[in-house]
Amino acid sequence: MSRKFIVAGAQLGPIARDESRASAVARMCALMRAAKARGARVVVFPELALTTFFPRWHFTDPADIDQWFETEMPNADTQPLFDLSRELGIGFHLGYAELTADGHHYNTAIMVNESGEIIGKYRKIHLPGHFEFEDWRPFQHLEKYYFEKGDLGFHAFHAFDGKAGMCICNDRRWPETWRSLGLAGAELVVLGYNTPLHYPPAPEHDHLQYFHNELSVQAGCYQNGLWAVAVAKAGNEEGCDLIGGSVIVAPTGEIIAKAQGVGDEVITAEVDLDRCTEIRANIFNFAMHREPSDYHRITAPKDAS
Amino acid sequence: MSRKFIVAGAQLGPIARDESRASAVARMCALMRAAKARGARVVVFPELALTTFFPRWHFTDPADIDQWFETEMPNADTQPLFDLSRELGIGFHLGYAELTADGHHYNTAIMVNESGEIIGKYRKIHLPGHFEFEDWRPFQHLEKYYFEKGDLGFHAFHAFDGKAGMCICNDRRWPETWRSLGLAGAELVVLGYNTPLHYPPAPEHDHLQYFHNELSVQAGCYQNGLWAVAVAKAGNEEGCDLIGGSVIVAPTGEIIAKAQGVGDEVITAEVDLDRCTEIRANIFNFAMHREPSDYHRITAPKDAS
Repeated sequence: MSRKFIVAGAQLGPIARDESRASAVARMCALMRAAKARGARVVVFPELALTTFFPRWHFTDPADIDQWFETEMPNADTQPLFDLSRELGIGFHLGYAELTADGHHYNTAIMVNESGEIIGKYRKIHLPGHFEFEDWRPFQHLEKYYFEKGDLGFHAFHAFDGKAGMCICNDRRWPETWRSLGLAGAELVVLGYNTPLHYPPAPEHDHLQYFHNELSVQAGCYQNGLWAVAVAKAGNEEGCDLIGGSVIVAPTGEIIAKAQGVGDEVITAEVDLDRCTEIRANIFNFAMHREPSDYHRITAPKDAS
Repeated sequence: MSRKFIVAGAQLGPIARDESRASAVARMCALMRAAKARGARVVVFPELALTTFFPRWHFTDPADIDQWFETEMPNADTQPLFDLSRELGIGFHLGYAELTADGHHYNTAIMVNESGEIIGKYRKIHLPGHFEFEDWRPFQHLEKYYFEKGDLGFHAFHAFDGKAGMCICNDRRWPETWRSLGLAGAELVVLGYNTPLHYPPAPEHDHLQYFHNELSVQAGCYQNGLWAVAVAKAGNEEGCDLIGGSVIVAPTGEIIAKAQGVGDEVITAEVDLDRCTEIRANIFNFAMHREPSDYHRITAPKDAS
């Protein structure tokens, strides 16, 4: 049985601070319809896709913080996405800020199948940025302040006649993320990101933001023999430029689809999950060629490394 | 104190099966002089730089095998390289096949300082290819037959006012190699390779050989904030085309020098070891951002992964 199908990435342009979730969801529903019209079986939305990228500001009042978080999924605002998924028969990936019943805050993503059912969940592990307000920055990146490290690990789960995995934004830069997902058997990794074009701690690298995004995703795909759909929230959001550059990447590391701007945009490509074996049975045959006994530093506690 | 200096990569064109070590060493001495004339403090020669890439053939007689191996380093054939290193005051990296006094066979590289003294040694860990003769192949890749897995681990050692690390050929494709060296503190990684343009198990990837070489080295540099010099033995060697594409790569992942052909060729670039902190104090601040407790699959024994 063929395991070829069309995947879509639905890049989002900026979401204003005062834009409602209902508005963001309406934009995503339009993109979901466009993806379906292009034959997609699943459409990938970005990280924290329901609101503006709020970690650029420093909120201290718990109510000001929790306004950005979802306490249920689906909820009234996102139900239209689930309903349209079921109506059209298309899966989707959605990133959002999650507040659990027992008070934990996570940067979370879910995978939903063609019947509108949640089949996978991931909570971001590599939280970038800083823990406290830093007044020298033109904007904050307070993910370590707002979120706890994800507690679900890196996992692959059955989806779309294969195995899928998820990671979020900064996770994609870390080869450990891709290798953990590859070893878990993932054949398709989906992820969203909100990546400022300007990186205040090392602005001499600003011109490399698109390159670093591609390099990280391409290397992760090639070195693990898997497909990836990496999708941006992009454009000038509340005075902060976010990169676009959403891509679909093959197990060879080749970019096979790429967004052309920084607004709402659907990209699609055909993936064939059976092609993972071209890489994983050969150059990256893990069982034949990996040498875990020489990798001890990678899992050593940080103080010892 | 500035830690800027010039590094050189000395790509070698093909070495014929009947070409003597003395001839290969004479070619390398000429390249060493050219590197010195361009201001280089160290010049990097490829993997197995003294002979043709013999793992493409299947030898069974121990004497036929051991003819390709060095039992001492330096020895009479390679002494001119060490003498010229000392005379010119330039360090070098050399790959060769090593036969130890107790009968072990390794794919080995050494680093030599500006005084002609060996200051680092590495034995290849990720051996590619296969264990036995396979008659369907147009040429063999019998590294797993000729060599044992290296027993020295991945280490960084003091060199050139900083810390250097080594890996060899296929090692460069594995993110575990780069991460292990990065965690060990390496600021400059040097490596050589012999990479056939045609990959018999998956010839549909032949057009990607140069891309995969660059992708692997660039990702390794960026994700660990270190410099690399990656040097080919290239060209049509005994009917087998080897890729060129020797590169010097910055800690940003940018290629800053690149060979233009498949013959003997020197490339140079200025490296500044202090620039590693641009990456390692920020986006890849290991102490702040790595999450080793989530990486357990990476060091799990292979049967359990």
